[in-house]
This record gives sequence, structure tokens and C-alpha cells, in this order.
Amino acid sequence: MSRLHILGVGMGPQHVTVEVAEALRACDYVLAARKGAEDTLLALRRTVCASHGVELVAIPDPERDRSDSLGAAYPRAVRDWHDARVEAYADLIAARPGTIGMLVWGDASLYDSSIRIAEALAARGAIEEYRVWPGVSAPQLLAARHRLVLNDVGGAVHVTTGRRLRAAVEAGLDNLVVMLNRRLELDGLEDWSIWWGGNLGAPGEELVAGRVGDVLPEILAARARARDAAGWVMDLYLLRRP
Amino acid sequence: MSRLHILGVGMGPQHVTVEVAEALRACDYVLAARKGAEDTLLALRRTVCASHGVELVAIPDPERDRSDSLGAAYPRAVRDWHDARVEAYADLIAARPGTIGMLVWGDASLYDSSIRIAEALAARGAIEEYRVWPGVSAPQLLAARHRLVLNDVGGAVHVTTGRRLRAAVEAGLDNLVVMLNRRLELDGLEDWSIWWGGNLGAPGEELVAGRVGDVLPEILAARARARDAAGWVMDLYLLRRP
Repeated sequence: MSRLHILGVGMGPQHVTVEVAEALRACDYVLAARKGAEDTLLALRRTVCASHGVELVAIPDPERDRSDSLGAAYPRAVRDWHDARVEAYADLIAARPGTIGMLVWGDASLYDSSIRIAEALAARGAIEEYRVWPGVSAPQLLAARHRLVLNDVGGAVHVTTGRRLRAAVEAGLDNLVVMLNRRLELDGLEDWSIWWGGNLGAPGEELVAGRVGDVLPEILAARARARDAAGWVMDLYLLRRP
Repeated sequence: MSRLHILGVGMGPQHVTVEVAEALRACDYVLAARKGAEDTLLALRRTVCASHGVELVAIPDPERDRSDSLGAAYPRAVRDWHDARVEAYADLIAARPGTIGMLVWGDASLYDSSIRIAEALAARGAIEEYRVWPGVSAPQLLAARHRLVLNDVGGAVHVTTGRRLRAAVEAGLDNLVVMLNRRLELDGLEDWSIWWGGNLGAPGEELVAGRVGDVLPEILAARARARDAAGWVMDLYLLRRP
């Protein structure tokens, strides 16, 4: 029977913890999805595996139907893609049973599907058990780079997505970490303060902070630079009401 | 001139990252507060320092006036205590300039005063610069232990304190990480789901999950056990509306 370790590796090899390194070295291999010919995150996973002497087995990620990404079919498209990925993983695990690792960029607790995949693998009997090991998540690195406390003294911080930003602002929330941004839509928030980071922890990392109305052009330029440097961009920001 | 590294060490030596270990070994010494004769967190800091061959210098923490902990004088009492701590640190740094580390339990981005102390030390010229290194924070470890994704699919998570829990519930928030709990006050939330953890990552760690109305007695018993085992208790939980 196989067991799975879900390993949070933060934003790169520099963030691997003592216990993640130990669990990783105990794995027979690491399972990873290959999303295309140019998959930078896969390359970063290879670096982590190589530095701990563990084999990485990459399997092609199923195609995801993005034809209706904001419409009614979106949840079904994500579900189908998720099912296809689980099936591909289960097939590989059946062929190569053992102790298997999955490397999560950041931490599995925020906007990550590894735990859902592990639950699905366990439900169909592909693995006997799984365990999750925490890693540094992107909001921690954003805060460290800007030397921020995400909450104010004793206050709250609301972690949400670009898609849900408007709803959070309308609900009166005033201290927001916003992740998963396809684009930056900050119209009407010109007087808010922003602390933004792009491709944090990777080469070509970018940081910008200031009043939204003042620094938005600078952020957009930095975002384009990050994408040019890495071929991809992942960004997030803290947004605080004036 | 002196420089300061604020080092997030997660919930123990097992969570020290590669870059935190490197920065720690580059320190001349680590500065820590001693809060009393029996200071378990200081002992844990000693363990981290010893395993990386760095001296720990403990200075007695100033007395904090807790006589009016919920009243109007509370903010001033905290400020005075904070000022006294900064002064004690500045005196020590003046006597022993160099590269100095401060170990943060969890991560400096959530409910931690290290960055404010560093800003105050920089403002009075006691240090030339400081840098923050991220660590695993308690919500990540809570999520890992319960194998939870803190957000639902694409949803939001609101991180707040026990003191502010009622305000968050009244504002209609439905997915809450609650930290800094002096006590657990969950009256009226019997139908919510809770995933609770006490002294996570330490010996005597406790975990309970279920419907609040069903598991609250179990949580209170686990909380008492954790306090008995360690001499202190730090707990947090995810609370989700039904």
C-alpha cells in the first residue's frame, strides 16, 4: 500500500524546513504535474528534489477546458480536470506503489488542490494514508519582504482572491490579502495603501508599495517585468483602507 | 553598526527553513526576552540556537502592568511595556554590537511585535538595518494537522483574534481562523464546525474537530491537558458557519 506526503516547500528550496527535508528524503519518489513544455514550477520542483536526492516523476497534466472560464460551465470544467488528474495519479501510483511525495508551492492550506487530490486518491483506494507538512505561504513572504505585520495591533486580516475583492470591499473589510490575481482591478481604491509582490522568492522578484493611485502604473510595469523574466507571474498584495 | 535578523522559526526546530538556518548561523548572537523563571518558549529558542551553534542572550522582560487588561489603560500599559523592552534591547546592543538574531515563534507577520521592536530600535539608531525571514505560521500548522484547506474552493478566510470573534460573526463572516484566545467563548455558535489545535508542534499537542456544540467539552479538556503538560497553552482554530 502507498502513502503520500504533501510537502509545503514555500517559495523555493530556501524555504524547505527541517521536517519537510526529512519527509522528502524518506520518499521513494515525488509525483508532479507537467503543465506544458515550459513549466517553470516543475523546474523548481526538480531543483528541490535534486538537492535532496529524490527522483521526480512528472506526468502530463490533463487539458483543462478554459473556453468558459467565467461562466456557468466553469465549476464543471474544473471538476472534470480534477478527476482526470486524480485518475492519472492513481494509475501511476498503482504501477509504482511506495512512499510518495507531492511538493506544494507555498503551503497546502491556501488555494491549493493537493489535499483534495489526496482525499480523492484515498477514497478510491490508491493510497492508504496521507500526511500534510506545512510550509511558508506567500502572505508570509510578502509580509517579510515589506517588513509588515499583516494585522494591525490586535486587528484582523482577510485573505481572499482577486475574483472576490469587490465583495470584500463592499462588505466593509479594510485589511485584505489578495491572492490569485489574473489582473489587477483596483478602480475606485486609489486612496487605499498597497504592498504588492510578484514572483516572490524567485529570480526577478518584484516589490512595490504605496498609495494605489500613485503606484499602480509602477506595479503594472513590475508585473510585466516579472512575467518577462520568468515566463509566468504569480503575485499578491496587502490592501489597507485609508 | 548593528544589524538585526528577525527569524521566523515556525513552531519549533523542525520548522526552521534553509535560509533561516543560514541567517541564524551568520548571527553573532540571538537576543531573547526572559519572561519569568519558567519560560518554555525561551527554552525552545535555546534548543534552536544550540542546534545551530549560536549563543542566546536572554534579558529579563520588563514587567507589564496587567491590572486593567480590558480597560482604558490597556493600550498605554502595552505601550509602556513595549518602550521598556526596546530600551533594554538597545542597551544590550550598544554593549554588544554586531549581527543579531531574534527568533519569532511562528512568523513575524501575524500577531507578533518583533517588527515594531525593530522599527523602534532603528528609529533610535540602535541598529542600522533589519531584515525579516518568513517562517511557518500557526494557521498553516493547524491546517496541516487537520488536513484542511483554510479557504473553501476559491473562497476567503478571515484571520482574527478571540477578542474580535463576535464582531466578525456579526459582520456575516463565515470562515474564520481565530488566534490569541485567552479563553474559548463560543456561545451561540453550537452549529458551526470547528477545527481546534493547542500547543501545536510542541510535546503534548492536542487536536479536536467537530460541531462546536458536540466537541466543546472535549476541547476544554484538551486545552487543560496541554496547559498541564507544557505549563502554558497557545491555541487557535478554524471556525466555519454551517
